Amino acid sequence: MRRDEIPTPALLLDLDRFERNLARMAQHVRATGKALRPHAKTHRCPDIAKQQVAAGALGVACAKLGEAEVMARAGVRGLLITTEVVPAASIRRLTRLVGEAPDTMVVVDHADNVRALARAAAEDGVRLDMLVDVHVGGRRTGVEPGEPALALGRLVSEQRALRLRGLQGYAGHCAHVMGWAARRTASHAAMTPLMETRARFEAAGLPVEVVAGGSTGTYDIDSELAGLTELQSGSYCVMDLEYRRIGGREREALTDFEMALTVVATVVSVAVDRAMVDAGLKAFSTDKPFPPEAVERPGIEYGFAGDEHGRLTLTDPSRRPELGERIEFFPPHCDPTFNLYDRVWVLRGAKVEAVWEIAARGRSD
Amino acid sequence: MRRDEIPTPALLLDLDRFERNLARMAQHVRATGKALRPHAKTHRCPDIAKQQVAAGALGVACAKLGEAEVMARAGVRGLLITTEVVPAASIRRLTRLVGEAPDTMVVVDHADNVRALARAAAEDGVRLDMLVDVHVGGRRTGVEPGEPALALGRLVSEQRALRLRGLQGYAGHCAHVMGWAARRTASHAAMTPLMETRARFEAAGLPVEVVAGGSTGTYDIDSELAGLTELQSGSYCVMDLEYRRIGGREREALTDFEMALTVVATVVSVAVDRAMVDAGLKAFSTDKPFPPEAVERPGIEYGFAGDEHGRLTLTDPSRRPELGERIEFFPPHCDPTFNLYDRVWVLRGAKVEAVWEIAARGRSD
Repeated sequence: MRRDEIPTPALLLDLDRFERNLARMAQHVRATGKALRPHAKTHRCPDIAKQQVAAGALGVACAKLGEAEVMARAGVRGLLITTEVVPAASIRRLTRLVGEAPDTMVVVDHADNVRALARAAAEDGVRLDMLVDVHVGGRRTGVEPGEPALALGRLVSEQRALRLRGLQGYAGHCAHVMGWAARRTASHAAMTPLMETRARFEAAGLPVEVVAGGSTGTYDIDSELAGLTELQSGSYCVMDLEYRRIGGREREALTDFEMALTVVATVVSVAVDRAMVDAGLKAFSTDKPFPPEAVERPGIEYGFAGDEHGRLTLTDPSRRPELGERIEFFPPHCDPTFNLYDRVWVLRGAKVEAVWEIAARGRSD
Repeated sequence: MRRDEIPTPALLLDLDRFERNLARMAQHVRATGKALRPHAKTHRCPDIAKQQVAAGALGVACAKLGEAEVMARAGVRGLLITTEVVPAASIRRLTRLVGEAPDTMVVVDHADNVRALARAAAEDGVRLDMLVDVHVGGRRTGVEPGEPALALGRLVSEQRALRLRGLQGYAGHCAHVMGWAARRTASHAAMTPLMETRARFEAAGLPVEVVAGGSTGTYDIDSELAGLTELQSGSYCVMDLEYRRIGGREREALTDFEMALTVVATVVSVAVDRAMVDAGLKAFSTDKPFPPEAVERPGIEYGFAGDEHGRLTLTDPSRRPELGERIEFFPPHCDPTFNLYDRVWVLRGAKVEAVWEIAARGRSD
């Protein structure tokens, strides 16, 4: 099948760009002496995870247990579940998962959760590898840094069925700070308490073999931290409009990684003042305050116009879209865009090289 | 399984409320002498479509061919595809679909598309039932009302493989006008050209046995139009926050239909100033400028905090969410929320009565 035969709307991955992104990040972590465990919440696709591992990643980070189950079943190892696993039934699923994929790690930020995990692991005869999730600002999950984190680390290390491996601190609020210098200032401020907590763990004899954090926005900022062992950056593999606009170290846009993900749509209606494509708010992420952007097609502006419609406003009336014309768009935010599709069409130029299943799509459980 | 055992985040349907919504709409269309072909883009769920047909609907409207294929395969008949089917490969799929479900109708707004459909139908030995899609404002699809619509209707009626059935006019821009009286004014203004086009069709001897339109916001407004034969309202079956806030005929909120759809989440992290649930922007629609709302749980406010996190801000500190607590939320917009889930858990009180597959999820093609 060829690029122009794929039924629309569809999610497309440019393999050349994707491979260059993987190579670029592999080179960066090698040069800075860090490991990489990229976030699979970006793509939810085991085939992409395997390519990342083949390019040197330790495994992948998973936002949810459901994602990790899919990755493990597909043969991906080196999993880190970055959100606390709390319900009793979920903890049971976790011990089963660890039975299959023993090097899986999970984060924890509450003493009750530590005790529940320890009990279940002991009952089910597995050992759970744990990171203490530290709150580094952003008001999401994580125990407060310093003494509270240390106390939780001690509690983990006292449980026979648990094995403390180190720390996680994810500064999501820094990932999209506009401008590299401002982002660096924000991320260093956020991550400093994590580094101080690391020092306390070391002084107390607690393990810090893994200290994980970082986003695509801070991949070349957090790698400056001597105490960070691995990056969790995810979006770098395909990029999106949101990350592109935050700015890079040397350029106004973040162009260190290439825009490898597009949605292709078809013009299904034309009128004097507009053209409509068959891709609306079920075809793109809608969580950002800016719309999809046409690729290599200046003179048109996309606007959401319902579940299944996008309205093209023509800023260059000399190049009017035709009925049936196919147009590709960059999505605003890659993670929730991937999560709308069952598959991604993998292209080498005009040729469909593969169709990869987004097997963990919808697996937020 | 019971309500409190369902893995989170999950989509829940309250069967008592849902059934009352279906009965209420059935009563309304009976009383106003209209037919009902509710929009299945709301739910993408054949089991819901079948319940709507059992309650008296003629069939269901589908935004896309892909949805219609799923509905047809599940045995649902009386399908109307409300978006133009343009690519050659899609037209081929359409003729196959019509081979299975011959009463399927499709809309058209361009002469080139009419000719392409006629050619394919003749080649494949099927007859396609057609509505002329009329632009009634809102700058989406549709041929202009009056003479252009009439010319297109004539063109359809001249094609031996096509059968003209009537008109469609969907005033999506009126569906959420705040306040019933203002919405009535807007919708009547939008629909008047459709009614005038109907009169022209009749005068020209063209069929108008079907004149379709209407949303949940205008269900008791468009039913006042003598020339409208059927309503396409979809969201009424489960409702959402957006429709509730537009206001009803007699009340400040639209309470004619009950809020039957919720997302259940679990508190996975607690801190002094916040609690985090495991439902973020992959668990709810994100296209509206207001967040999900907790059900029967005053004192907490939900805010999106990433792909998999929702932040609960406590406005009543005396009732602090506990780690592991389950909380249900009304989604802002039902259609794209359904489209995130593979299944909906169907509840009678605390008991899971059924699990319905959202079989057309992701079928925007």
